[in-house]
Amino acid sequence: MVVQRAAQYFVGVDVGGTKILAGLFNRSLKLLGTVKLKTKANRGGDAVLDRIERAIRELLTEHSIRLTQVRAIGVGVPGIVHQGRVFGATNIGWEDVPIRALLNRRLRRPVAVENDCNLFTLGIHTLELKRKPRTMVGVFLGTGFGGGIIINNKLYTGFNRSAGEFGQMVISKGGLKTGTGIRGSLESLASRTGIVRRLRKAVLEGGETMLQEELGAQLKGVRSRHLRQAITARDPLVRRVVRSVAEDTGLGVAAIVSAFGPEYVVMGGGVIEALHGTMLPIVRKTVESHVLPGTLDGVQIVTSALGDDGGISGAAVLARDGVAK
Amino acid sequence: MVVQRAAQYFVGVDVGGTKILAGLFNRSLKLLGTVKLKTKANRGGDAVLDRIERAIRELLTEHSIRLTQVRAIGVGVPGIVHQGRVFGATNIGWEDVPIRALLNRRLRRPVAVENDCNLFTLGIHTLELKRKPRTMVGVFLGTGFGGGIIINNKLYTGFNRSAGEFGQMVISKGGLKTGTGIRGSLESLASRTGIVRRLRKAVLEGGETMLQEELGAQLKGVRSRHLRQAITARDPLVRRVVRSVAEDTGLGVAAIVSAFGPEYVVMGGGVIEALHGTMLPIVRKTVESHVLPGTLDGVQIVTSALGDDGGISGAAVLARDGVAK
Repeated sequence: MVVQRAAQYFVGVDVGGTKILAGLFNRSLKLLGTVKLKTKANRGGDAVLDRIERAIRELLTEHSIRLTQVRAIGVGVPGIVHQGRVFGATNIGWEDVPIRALLNRRLRRPVAVENDCNLFTLGIHTLELKRKPRTMVGVFLGTGFGGGIIINNKLYTGFNRSAGEFGQMVISKGGLKTGTGIRGSLESLASRTGIVRRLRKAVLEGGETMLQEELGAQLKGVRSRHLRQAITARDPLVRRVVRSVAEDTGLGVAAIVSAFGPEYVVMGGGVIEALHGTMLPIVRKTVESHVLPGTLDGVQIVTSALGDDGGISGAAVLARDGVAK
Repeated sequence: MVVQRAAQYFVGVDVGGTKILAGLFNRSLKLLGTVKLKTKANRGGDAVLDRIERAIRELLTEHSIRLTQVRAIGVGVPGIVHQGRVFGATNIGWEDVPIRALLNRRLRRPVAVENDCNLFTLGIHTLELKRKPRTMVGVFLGTGFGGGIIINNKLYTGFNRSAGEFGQMVISKGGLKTGTGIRGSLESLASRTGIVRRLRKAVLEGGETMLQEELGAQLKGVRSRHLRQAITARDPLVRRVVRSVAEDTGLGVAAIVSAFGPEYVVMGGGVIEALHGTMLPIVRKTVESHVLPGTLDGVQIVTSALGDDGGISGAAVLARDGVAK
């Protein structure tokens, strides 16, 4: 005889350009375990959908849990999400995909979808800060530069669900342009892509770094951990570039603080995970010298302790609280 | 016999660096008349308080209305307002002034105080847009560069009541610095002070403008109307500077739009009043090329029709709705 138990688990999924992370949560949103798969975005949007499904099924098998025991699934994606559709998630080959309906059809469980940075912010606010700050911004430096906003204790997404796109903000008119970023924008200057571009430029101009030994003159395949290794070894070129990136990030955070007046600024993402020891003090100092007196009284500028699990944590919160978008 | 009528009027006051404008409103918030006095900030903070009182008393005398017929008075000031105190209103000589208590003692009517740009935004949102947009930002270019924010149909002021200080946002790292502004910030680049500085610099570098005939080589006392006259006369130097200022303003508005995702951006202030014909198309075009696809769908970027009366209108709304701060 099979005892039918109430659906008491939540699944949170974070779909990134390079990996898909799926996490199993109990009803108190304690993380029970994760499964990580490569996204393989180069195989196309349908393949990514297959891999999301596979990550979820593997996660459940691993914990001997049936899909019917999952109350809801939350999914974070790197694009603008509106009514269950994802727009402009070019990183994973999705121009306009009705992801909620597609996943719901495959898994027969309630699915809620939201922008990944919004979920990271929601996860930090709910699980790490216990909903204490009424107003908070999340600032994430990874492959790109993104953000999320909490206002009056709720995720704020704006009129077109596009709020928090801090990476588009220009802080250095006429400055560096990276990939699809805007010239002189935070995404061009202070994402990992921007950092790598700045390092390559410095090397082209005759600079030298220990990373050339491992990665070659083109610095092919630089990851955040390479940057951390070079910083730890006090590599002068990498230190100079990372400090400059921290200053630019500080100008961006200052602009965000002047505009929003948040109680908390929480920073995360691969670049911050790896380099916060160097970057955070410079960010704080730059913010202090670029806002009006009084603006920072009692304001916290900190890094998230959730690390890589921030995205799936927020996805689990979304799944539980049912703010299905 | 004196018939005692219910207090049915509201007074809105806008205290600026150069002038104090006081407006009388009926209970439907129709503007019945105004009185304008010079601020004479150079005489010190107490003198400014005297002149606010005088403006209100003159306004009431003009309309044969007694103070007891005034239900409440709203006051906008160029500083950060917290619990009836004004901080950092250096323009008018107020470092820390308990303006609500002081005016209440002088006039014996309920007084509500708020930042001037916040009130301008509130006035536009309530009286001009009839509270239609849930999310709106006001962007004001005058002597300085300020802003205000409506979120979920309410004035949003952030954790330290400092939200909306858009003038602090750096868009051109290492760029021009004006007065107390931050180098390369919107206030340094795109306020009237910034425009004048840019014109003077161009003249120093050998440029010529018709404004030199009237104002001398130092361009002493440039007002927004001088700039408009020069634009109308197709003065090449002024056109070039104003266009460049409009581009910078556009970069700022683009950053604000990417961050907040508002439904409406409403622009106002002396510079915009005088130059919107030249500036607004350039601002719009610059915003379009600096935000993600979809961000601007259905978004309005417009100028306010309230003009100089925006501040007192918002002050009257504050007086009526009693959001006394």
